[in-house]
Amino acid sequence: MNILIAQSGGPTAAINASLAGVMKAAFESLEIDKVYGGCNGIQGILEDRIIQLNEGFEGNEESLNRLKMTPAMYLGSCRYKMKSVEEDTADYDRVLEIFRKYAIGAFFYIGGNDSMDTVDKMSKYVELKGVDVKVIGIPKTIDNDLMMIDHTPGFGSAAKYIATSVREIAMDTYIYNMDTVVIVEIMGRNAGWLTAASALARSNYNVAPQLIYLPEVAFNSDDFIWQVKKILFQYHHVIVAVSEGIKDESGKYISAQGTKTDKFGHVMLSGTGAVLKELVAERIGCKVRSIELNVLQRAAAHCASATDLEESFELGCNGVKLALSGKTGVMSTIVRTGDNPYTIEYSSAKIDKIANAEKKIPREWITPEGADVTTKMIEYLRPLIQGEPEVPYKDGLPDYILDRVRRK
Amino acid sequence: MNILIAQSGGPTAAINASLAGVMKAAFESLEIDKVYGGCNGIQGILEDRIIQLNEGFEGNEESLNRLKMTPAMYLGSCRYKMKSVEEDTADYDRVLEIFRKYAIGAFFYIGGNDSMDTVDKMSKYVELKGVDVKVIGIPKTIDNDLMMIDHTPGFGSAAKYIATSVREIAMDTYIYNMDTVVIVEIMGRNAGWLTAASALARSNYNVAPQLIYLPEVAFNSDDFIWQVKKILFQYHHVIVAVSEGIKDESGKYISAQGTKTDKFGHVMLSGTGAVLKELVAERIGCKVRSIELNVLQRAAAHCASATDLEESFELGCNGVKLALSGKTGVMSTIVRTGDNPYTIEYSSAKIDKIANAEKKIPREWITPEGADVTTKMIEYLRPLIQGEPEVPYKDGLPDYILDRVRRK
Repeated sequence: MNILIAQSGGPTAAINASLAGVMKAAFESLEIDKVYGGCNGIQGILEDRIIQLNEGFEGNEESLNRLKMTPAMYLGSCRYKMKSVEEDTADYDRVLEIFRKYAIGAFFYIGGNDSMDTVDKMSKYVELKGVDVKVIGIPKTIDNDLMMIDHTPGFGSAAKYIATSVREIAMDTYIYNMDTVVIVEIMGRNAGWLTAASALARSNYNVAPQLIYLPEVAFNSDDFIWQVKKILFQYHHVIVAVSEGIKDESGKYISAQGTKTDKFGHVMLSGTGAVLKELVAERIGCKVRSIELNVLQRAAAHCASATDLEESFELGCNGVKLALSGKTGVMSTIVRTGDNPYTIEYSSAKIDKIANAEKKIPREWITPEGADVTTKMIEYLRPLIQGEPEVPYKDGLPDYILDRVRRK
Repeated sequence: MNILIAQSGGPTAAINASLAGVMKAAFESLEIDKVYGGCNGIQGILEDRIIQLNEGFEGNEESLNRLKMTPAMYLGSCRYKMKSVEEDTADYDRVLEIFRKYAIGAFFYIGGNDSMDTVDKMSKYVELKGVDVKVIGIPKTIDNDLMMIDHTPGFGSAAKYIATSVREIAMDTYIYNMDTVVIVEIMGRNAGWLTAASALARSNYNVAPQLIYLPEVAFNSDDFIWQVKKILFQYHHVIVAVSEGIKDESGKYISAQGTKTDKFGHVMLSGTGAVLKELVAERIGCKVRSIELNVLQRAAAHCASATDLEESFELGCNGVKLALSGKTGVMSTIVRTGDNPYTIEYSSAKIDKIANAEKKIPREWITPEGADVTTKMIEYLRPLIQGEPEVPYKDGLPDYILDRVRRK
């Protein structure tokens, strides 16, 4: 049989490692012949934009290794939500047509919550039609918000980038002998895992970030200003890590409140960091800066976690094993079996328990006042950022595989 | 004799490497006894905040090496402009008092344009008063805008971070099958060197950034929109690298907030990327994002250039040699002696040719239309980002020296 792989959703530093893992296990399997890649996720599959991956990767350890270190998505992505089967089966039938055309026996979809929804729907339709194609989900998301998995591939690398950057930002801030507040805005609309990872920046000599605000706890401006003032008095420098998605007591996004107009009368949508910066400037008046880590937190593979890349690769391999053992409608998962030392096992979970659900931070991993995380959280996070992969460099820059990443 | 070292201005990834270089050469010299550090630059020296550096660093290669890799400023910084001697000699006399108190025979000030102004004034006053203290400038600035030196320490590391990040941002952008413009705002008020370095992100498979806007060329909005449209039509994804300090034909900053000034009278800029984003949204209407690299371009030592760190270290050593050979009122410099292979020599230059002057990009290194740099520029830049230092890691994060960096 042949297999088909595609990628979907937002990029991470580790999603290509999972692609490399699926390929590696497929090349080693006697049951699998050709390995196809669908370009731009399910959307490209519907348009029959399918490429063969054996050429270029089979038997080429160096290419597979470079792919493992390459951020973003080698096969391209899409944001395409399939209709329900009750609504319209056209897309589903079209995918089955593609499966037949390429003699596909197993389909691997690497993605986050929305992509797992596609895996769920597709696996059920395939079963309904009595077609023998295994449909397997391979998880990825920097947000770490998937159910039924200890942590998500891509999260560890993003966490490492965030902790490294927050430590560097703190050092940059400390040099001046004046009261300074720096707000670091971190991704996460509904779950605060990435922002929580900023706590790893601390050391015996670095207390920053001193304040951590997560979407899981309602944000109160007066409390915030009070906390900042208190820490300014003690330390003179305050580094605040904040999730883009923090909300007030009424559930309204803090960022939405920051709408104002520029001198031409254009409405300027301020980010959460900009709103907090404005608050500090108005109510405290000290030097204040807002830094948005932006897409680099998901794309900075030069700062990836070796643990994350390795696990992402193995999750891909594990996906192939699941398909070959006859499973379908499942996601390849990680189960943590030990904390000290950190140990894991690869397993699987029924996809319908994962699709469209979100895992948030347990309240007991956040301090009672809600502006910091507990030791338990740090113990959970620490193993995920361990190890530095040997990123190949050429001419002073990471030598990522770029030939296919740039696709129209 | 004893020596005194201090650091000033904005941080870089390499300024502590120069500090390590001065220390290393001083520890090896039989003529130098104690090595003192002035905290928070000239300001801390005036306040007699002086620490001894022998303890902790002398004979401790591991500490010196960690210091070399540590970003920001171990001794802290200041933004303090000394009055002219004609205006008031109080500060100068106070510094002489400190020199006497600690039996200082040579003073090393590591900094950029403004710090070289301090070196210039101080060296002249010392001479005027017939005091035997050598005053030596050790250059640093990510901006690469110092005269009389091929390139400045700290610039290569910032350039490497910028090129790496722009490449990663491009890969992040390419994955979606839709017209997208990404504006990357890079530091540089008057000189475009840092923004020019984004061109290094290109490879055989990556054309981004396709547009580069520098302060050296007047910015025209209509031209900009026309260029973006043209490239969107061909590539669908446009990455624009822009200096925070671009100005229109009349010399007015494009940034909406280009009216505030800092203590030195420098215009404080932010928001150039946001203005360009707004322009694209209004006049083209496609997906558009603005990313500000912010302070990480000067603080991200985890992505430093080994060439830069090595040269910065050697410039420190060279400064000690200059002082011991009787020179004063000079800056330690780099002279490029060959391009292919890249070779350099360490030398010195009279400080009054450097203080308060700015080196801009020669017009012939920018393409005639003004939205890109020439091959000559890329040849100049390429050697400066070569090599990856072995940053010490602990628990998954760069193990920088943090004990003194955090000072009140």
